[in-house]
Amino acid sequence: MQPIGMSLLREVSPRLWSIRSSEQVALAKRAAQITAELQQGVKKPYKDVIDVSWGDAHRGGLKPLTFVRQVIASCLYPSLLNSESLPIDVQQKAQNLLGCCEGGSVGAYTSTCGIPKIVRSVSEFISRRDGGVESLPENIFITSGSQRSLMMVLKLFVQTERSARTGVLVPVPSYPYFNMALSMLGGVMVPYYLDEEHGWDVKVDELRRALHAARGHCNPMALYITNPGNPTGHVQNRKSIEDVIQFAAEENLFLLADEVYQDSVHDPESDFISYKKVLFEMGPPYSNSVELASFNSISKGYFGECGVRGGYVEFVNLDPTVMECAYTLFSTDTCASVLGQITLDILAHPPQPGDPSYPIFSEEIRAMKDTMISNVHRVQEVIGSLPGMSCQPIKGAIFAFPQLHLPPSAVQQAEKAGVNPDVWYSSCLLDEAGLCVGPGCEHGQREGTHHIRLCIATTQENLEEVLTRLSAFHLSFKSRFF
Amino acid sequence: MQPIGMSLLREVSPRLWSIRSSEQVALAKRAAQITAELQQGVKKPYKDVIDVSWGDAHRGGLKPLTFVRQVIASCLYPSLLNSESLPIDVQQKAQNLLGCCEGGSVGAYTSTCGIPKIVRSVSEFISRRDGGVESLPENIFITSGSQRSLMMVLKLFVQTERSARTGVLVPVPSYPYFNMALSMLGGVMVPYYLDEEHGWDVKVDELRRALHAARGHCNPMALYITNPGNPTGHVQNRKSIEDVIQFAAEENLFLLADEVYQDSVHDPESDFISYKKVLFEMGPPYSNSVELASFNSISKGYFGECGVRGGYVEFVNLDPTVMECAYTLFSTDTCASVLGQITLDILAHPPQPGDPSYPIFSEEIRAMKDTMISNVHRVQEVIGSLPGMSCQPIKGAIFAFPQLHLPPSAVQQAEKAGVNPDVWYSSCLLDEAGLCVGPGCEHGQREGTHHIRLCIATTQENLEEVLTRLSAFHLSFKSRFF
Repeated sequence: MQPIGMSLLREVSPRLWSIRSSEQVALAKRAAQITAELQQGVKKPYKDVIDVSWGDAHRGGLKPLTFVRQVIASCLYPSLLNSESLPIDVQQKAQNLLGCCEGGSVGAYTSTCGIPKIVRSVSEFISRRDGGVESLPENIFITSGSQRSLMMVLKLFVQTERSARTGVLVPVPSYPYFNMALSMLGGVMVPYYLDEEHGWDVKVDELRRALHAARGHCNPMALYITNPGNPTGHVQNRKSIEDVIQFAAEENLFLLADEVYQDSVHDPESDFISYKKVLFEMGPPYSNSVELASFNSISKGYFGECGVRGGYVEFVNLDPTVMECAYTLFSTDTCASVLGQITLDILAHPPQPGDPSYPIFSEEIRAMKDTMISNVHRVQEVIGSLPGMSCQPIKGAIFAFPQLHLPPSAVQQAEKAGVNPDVWYSSCLLDEAGLCVGPGCEHGQREGTHHIRLCIATTQENLEEVLTRLSAFHLSFKSRFF
Repeated sequence: MQPIGMSLLREVSPRLWSIRSSEQVALAKRAAQITAELQQGVKKPYKDVIDVSWGDAHRGGLKPLTFVRQVIASCLYPSLLNSESLPIDVQQKAQNLLGCCEGGSVGAYTSTCGIPKIVRSVSEFISRRDGGVESLPENIFITSGSQRSLMMVLKLFVQTERSARTGVLVPVPSYPYFNMALSMLGGVMVPYYLDEEHGWDVKVDELRRALHAARGHCNPMALYITNPGNPTGHVQNRKSIEDVIQFAAEENLFLLADEVYQDSVHDPESDFISYKKVLFEMGPPYSNSVELASFNSISKGYFGECGVRGGYVEFVNLDPTVMECAYTLFSTDTCASVLGQITLDILAHPPQPGDPSYPIFSEEIRAMKDTMISNVHRVQEVIGSLPGMSCQPIKGAIFAFPQLHLPPSAVQQAEKAGVNPDVWYSSCLLDEAGLCVGPGCEHGQREGTHHIRLCIATTQENLEEVLTRLSAFHLSFKSRFF
C-alpha cells in the first residue's frame, strides 16, 4: 500500500496545476475572514464588508421581478394556483408551463437542449427583438447559463490534437471566465486591446494586428466579443458591429457574441443591436456565410436571476453536419434547471399591456432603469472628481471599470511585495474600508495600466456608501504616496 | 471568403466525432414522433407513449414532497411567508435559508462550492447517516447534480498527456453517462463484469482480472461503483464493500462510489451502508489511506427532484495539495442552482417528529416506500412469468433490468438489419406497444446477452399499464420466432 494520500497527488492532471487560483477568489476569502472577525466583535473602521466584485444585482440589494417569482413559485407549488391571491395571468402562465413538464412537475428531467415549447418561445423572442429576422428553434440550445453555453461552444471547435492549437481572439479587458475556459480546453488566447481612450472602442486595425501576430504560433478560428462590454461598459454602434462582421468574414472567423447585457443600455444615445440583426441586414454574402454564436442569460438585465441558472446560445450559419455534432455535444449534458428554463420563457414572453401583471411588471422595470441611470451618473460624477482615477463613459452593462493612475512609488511598493498593483490597491481597499472590488488584472489591461471593477447594479443607498468608502480610501491612499 | 459553413465544419474537434449519438436519444426522438402522430389523429393500437427509459420518478407520476416544495416556493416568493397558510416550520426553514443568501435572494450567486451553511448541513447529514463518522465541510462540494460531480472528479485525475492514458475500472452494466464522460476526457474504460447469475454481485476476482488485463495499455487509477446499482438493482452488503475497499487499497485505486440511490433499498434483508462508513470501520491503514469520492443527489430517492438540479461529492483521504487543486477546479464552475442547494439542505435536515410538517412528510415517504415495494413485487412476478425473460432480484435503486433470452432467429434478424438485438426489441416495443424502455447495450452487458431497462419509480396504475403492454408485446414478439 502507498503512504497516505500519495497516489492521486502524483497523478493530478498536469493541466489543472496551470489553472491559476484567481486573485478574486483570494479577495473573496479575505472578505469572508473580515466578515467573520466583525461578527466576533473585532473593531474595524466599518461595520460590514460591501462586496461589489460580483456582477450580481440581487446581491447588491436590487429586487427580483414579482411576476417572475410568482410564476416560478406557482410552478413549484401548484396549490398556490387554487388561491385567489395570485393574478390570473400568473396562474395561466404557470399552468401553461406545467403543461410542458413531464408528469406536470418541474422536478422531471427535460430534453437536454431544453423544453421544446420554451426553445420555441426563445426563438420567437429573438425574432421579435431583431425586427423579424428568422430564428430557428433547432439552432437554439438552453443551458444552465452563459458560462455553460460558452464552455460547450468552445468544446465544439477548440482542439489540441493538431499541430497548431486553436486560437481565439479575446478582447482585453474581458470576461475572465472565457479565458479560463479556453485555457482549460487547451486553446490559445489571442489578445486584442480595446481602445480605452476612445470609450473602449473595438478597432479593426487592432483585430488585424492581433490576428497576424497569432498566426504561426496557433490557428486562430474565432473572435470573442462582449457587447455591451464587460467590464468596460461600452456599447457598439451599428458601424462598429458591421466592421467586426466584415473582418470575421474576410478572415473566416467564427463570431462568439456574448450579448448577456443586451437589456442593460443606460446611455440615451446608444442602443443595443444584436450581431445577428446586423449580420442579416448586411445581406449576402455575409448573412448566409458568417458563422455566429450569440449568448444570452437570465442572470443579467432586469431579471438578475443568477442563482436560478439559465441561459441559451443561438447558432447562425453553421453547417448542418456541425449542428448535428453540436446537438450530440449538448446532449451529453443533463438538462438545465427547469426553473431556469421557465424563467427564460418569462424573459421571452413577459407580461404585455392589458395583462393584470403588466402595471407592476413595467413599474418595477422602470424603477430599475431609473436606478441604473442614476447610478451611472453618480459613479461618473464621483470617480471623475477623484484625483488619480478616470472612467470612460458607462453606456451599458452593470460595471464601472475606472483606471487608477497610481504614483510610481505605489507601483514600486506593490511590485516589491510581489503583487500586481491593482491587486494591492484592492486588498488595501478591502482591509481599510471594507469594500471588495475586482482587480483589473483579472480582466486583462494594457501593460502599465491599472483598473478596478465595481458592480453598479445596486441600490442607490448602497452605491452612496460604496462611493463614500472608495473616495475616502482613495484620497488617503494617494496621500501616502505624494 | 470561404464557401458557406465550411470553415468550422473542417475544424470541429476530432474528439467530438467519437461521441456516439446514443441509441437512447434515437429512441426518444422516435417516441416524440409517435406522440406527434397520435396528436394528429393517426390511429395506433395505443393512445399514448409511456416512457420508462428515464430514471425520473416525477415523470412516472410520483408526486414531489409537499414540505420540499413549500420551502422552495417560499424562498422564491417570500410574500408567502406573510400568509397563514403555510406551516410554521416551513416558514422558519425558508427564513433561515434566505438568511444564507446574499441580498436575501435565491437569485444571487453563491460561493462556487455551495452556500457554506448548506455545506455544513450536508456534512452533518453524512456524519449522522454513518453513525458519527466525521465529515468535514471542506471536503464537500455542492454541484448541480451527480453528473456534474462525476465530471469534475474525473477532470481531477484523468489525463491524456502521459504516455499511458488514465484508466478507470467501470462495472458492466453501468450508468452510461460515466463512460461517456470518461471517454470525452480521453480516459479509458476498463470493464469489469457484474455477476448476473448471482444477483449482479461485484466479484474481486473479476476486478483483479480486469485490472491486470488493462495494465500495459493504460494506467488504471480509479474504480467506479454504483451501489445500490444502476441499472442492476443490486445492493452490496458489508462484506462485499469491505472486499472492494481492500482491493482498492492493495492496488492503490481511487474509489468513486456513486451512492445516489442510497435512499432506495426495497429488500427487507438489505441495508444501504456507505463506502465511507465501512472504510472507517475497517480502521487503519484503510481508514486513513484509501482515497474515496462519494456522490449523492436530490434527483433520486424520495425527493426525485431531477429538474431542480443539485447534488454533492465528498472526498475522503485526499492529500491537502490535491484538495487545493480540487478547490481551484470546482471554483472554475458557476455555483449550482440555489434552489437545488436549498433542496439539498432539506434532504440533509428533513422535518423531525414533533414538527408541524412531520406527519405529512413521513406519510408521503411511507406511501412512496409502499409503492416501490409493491412495484418491485409486481415487476418480478410479471417478468418472472414471461417465457424468455428473467430478472435478478431488485433490491434497490429504481430500475428493472431483465435479460431477454432471444431466439437465435430474432438475433440474426436484428443483426441482418445492422442493429443491436436489444435496440431492435426496444424499437419494436415502442412502435407496436407505445412503450419506451432503455436498451441494455447502452449500459453494457456480457456479449451474447440482451437486456432492457425500465424505471419502476412510477404509480402503481402506470406500472400495471407498462406491464400489460410489455407482456402482450413480448408474447407476440416471441411467437414470431418459434
